[in-house]
Amino acid sequence: MTFAAMRSSIITDAVPPLAPFAVSLGDPAGIGPEIVAKSWVMREARGLPPFFAVGDVASLRAVWLGPVERIDSPEEAAEVFPRALPCLQVADAGEIVPGAPGVDGARVAFQSLEVAVGLARSGSAAGIVTAPVGKEQLYGVGFTHPGQTEFIAERCGVAPHNAVMMLAGPALKVVPITIHIALADVSAALTIDLIRARALTTAKGLQRNFNIGRPRLAVAGLNPHAGENGALGREEIEVIRPAIEQLRADGLDIVGPLAADGMFHARARETYDAALCMYHDQALIPIKTLNFDEGVNITLGLPIVRTSPDHGTAFGIAGTDSANPGAMMAALKMAAEAARARILHG
Amino acid sequence: MTFAAMRSSIITDAVPPLAPFAVSLGDPAGIGPEIVAKSWVMREARGLPPFFAVGDVASLRAVWLGPVERIDSPEEAAEVFPRALPCLQVADAGEIVPGAPGVDGARVAFQSLEVAVGLARSGSAAGIVTAPVGKEQLYGVGFTHPGQTEFIAERCGVAPHNAVMMLAGPALKVVPITIHIALADVSAALTIDLIRARALTTAKGLQRNFNIGRPRLAVAGLNPHAGENGALGREEIEVIRPAIEQLRADGLDIVGPLAADGMFHARARETYDAALCMYHDQALIPIKTLNFDEGVNITLGLPIVRTSPDHGTAFGIAGTDSANPGAMMAALKMAAEAARARILHG
Repeated sequence: MTFAAMRSSIITDAVPPLAPFAVSLGDPAGIGPEIVAKSWVMREARGLPPFFAVGDVASLRAVWLGPVERIDSPEEAAEVFPRALPCLQVADAGEIVPGAPGVDGARVAFQSLEVAVGLARSGSAAGIVTAPVGKEQLYGVGFTHPGQTEFIAERCGVAPHNAVMMLAGPALKVVPITIHIALADVSAALTIDLIRARALTTAKGLQRNFNIGRPRLAVAGLNPHAGENGALGREEIEVIRPAIEQLRADGLDIVGPLAADGMFHARARETYDAALCMYHDQALIPIKTLNFDEGVNITLGLPIVRTSPDHGTAFGIAGTDSANPGAMMAALKMAAEAARARILHG
Repeated sequence: MTFAAMRSSIITDAVPPLAPFAVSLGDPAGIGPEIVAKSWVMREARGLPPFFAVGDVASLRAVWLGPVERIDSPEEAAEVFPRALPCLQVADAGEIVPGAPGVDGARVAFQSLEVAVGLARSGSAAGIVTAPVGKEQLYGVGFTHPGQTEFIAERCGVAPHNAVMMLAGPALKVVPITIHIALADVSAALTIDLIRARALTTAKGLQRNFNIGRPRLAVAGLNPHAGENGALGREEIEVIRPAIEQLRADGLDIVGPLAADGMFHARARETYDAALCMYHDQALIPIKTLNFDEGVNITLGLPIVRTSPDHGTAFGIAGTDSANPGAMMAALKMAAEAARARILHG
């Protein structure tokens, strides 16, 4: 389908209803169960898509007095959803003490993720939304991936480096080219190939998940003032600019390298659909400054829809009824948008 | 004076009127003359302090049809200010073509800066506000300092490394510990002594210029998640944390190293008065994201008040009447606040 034809085909009412989304509850001792329950309460006010929890019913009951119904298959979720939070029981997490993660809970978190991915892969769920896990706890029960994203990629048959993390909020979408490495190692990790791969996945991901026919990408420089023509560092000249030129030759709408400090104010943000950043904080500082309570992590490059709230387990406040469900609700809404966009995109 | 006594003495009405501020016009072919003239127009609406331009009257007339009066000494400024923009003529810049910088203009910019600093040093001006200069142009006429700040520091008898750049806006104040160096060189440039010196000057500068009795400082980590206990870099453990511990022993109210991406949202910003950042973009991304059109560069550690709009000459739009005077007006207001705070602070 051409871009023009695609755009003209966007008639939201014509999209068939989505299957419910599978929400893995994450570590049962974290804030996952609470924010999922609070999201269910807000389902109509916020226009959230139907979803069901995947985990241990007891972890929801430990922090919430509202209606939960155990379901045995995802097919039951749609019927239950209007009156109660459906929960597909995957295992028993034992005694759950919010804020005190344990081995049994980690095992349930692991299984919950595994089951949720499988349901999305098979089409029984429209996609997955993952609540936060404790990585240390997961490593204790045989989880060997760096994080949930890499695990999901593997289960989907996608090479880990082709699954790209995008942080998306109402004001901004960013993709960090390098992520969890020391700042001093960033320069050496940047290659033309890496930037190209991330940019191509990002462009395709914007089409598939956000229905943006011809995505506009803006690429940050690494150094102050994007290097000032080499005076403040040569990565722009030797790596970033050549990557951009090749991508432009590939047909991408892409600009840069731009001075990173001038890229994120309101007028600048209007000029692109996503910013490609060279390192973790260059991407995460602006989005968390602008959209702290509604930042969503969406994984691009997967055959399934996968989103996640952009925060951790927050063990320190678990069980105190003080967790903000904003990012979880935003993750649910974005998952629904992505699933609809994929239907339209064909 | 104790902090408590100082705080109780704050009765703004009791502050004597300030002398006018000296505003160096910067490069006459840049947007300096235009934003200074536009600020004069807004003097009452924005409550700006009295000021006078220092430069070439012709550079104002080249871009503005409003009233300008040439003055021969700063003493005339206060009387002229209500009816016209006073301009202390320092030299003739020759023919001025906005957008086309030249040697004569650079020479006037240089002299304008020199004269303005001298007037502030002598007390004939309450402080200086510097419009942007073209560094390349200045280098061509014998200017040998890296920037205006270092020049001003030298004229004030302050070692360049003791003059500290703070970027300040309504939402945030930041101080970059390292500034115009390649990102790959940042780690090696960070030392305990450097961080301590910047923090001490920052704390003192917040007292003197912003009348904050006991400033609260927040220090960013260098690496993602502030290094995750060494897993993502060791600078936090080896350099940043020891510096903070020493500063706390010195009596400073200081926290960190914090994960930089979580420091700049609205709730986080309420917990400190200024953020100390490890490198240029870590400081400038959040402030320009939040306060792009009203960011002020204020130099801490000087015996005089010095502020500057946080943007460049913008030769590309000079003469088109499209320059935004927001940052210049904010710089004028901040200079007035700083001058008043210094009177109160004794």
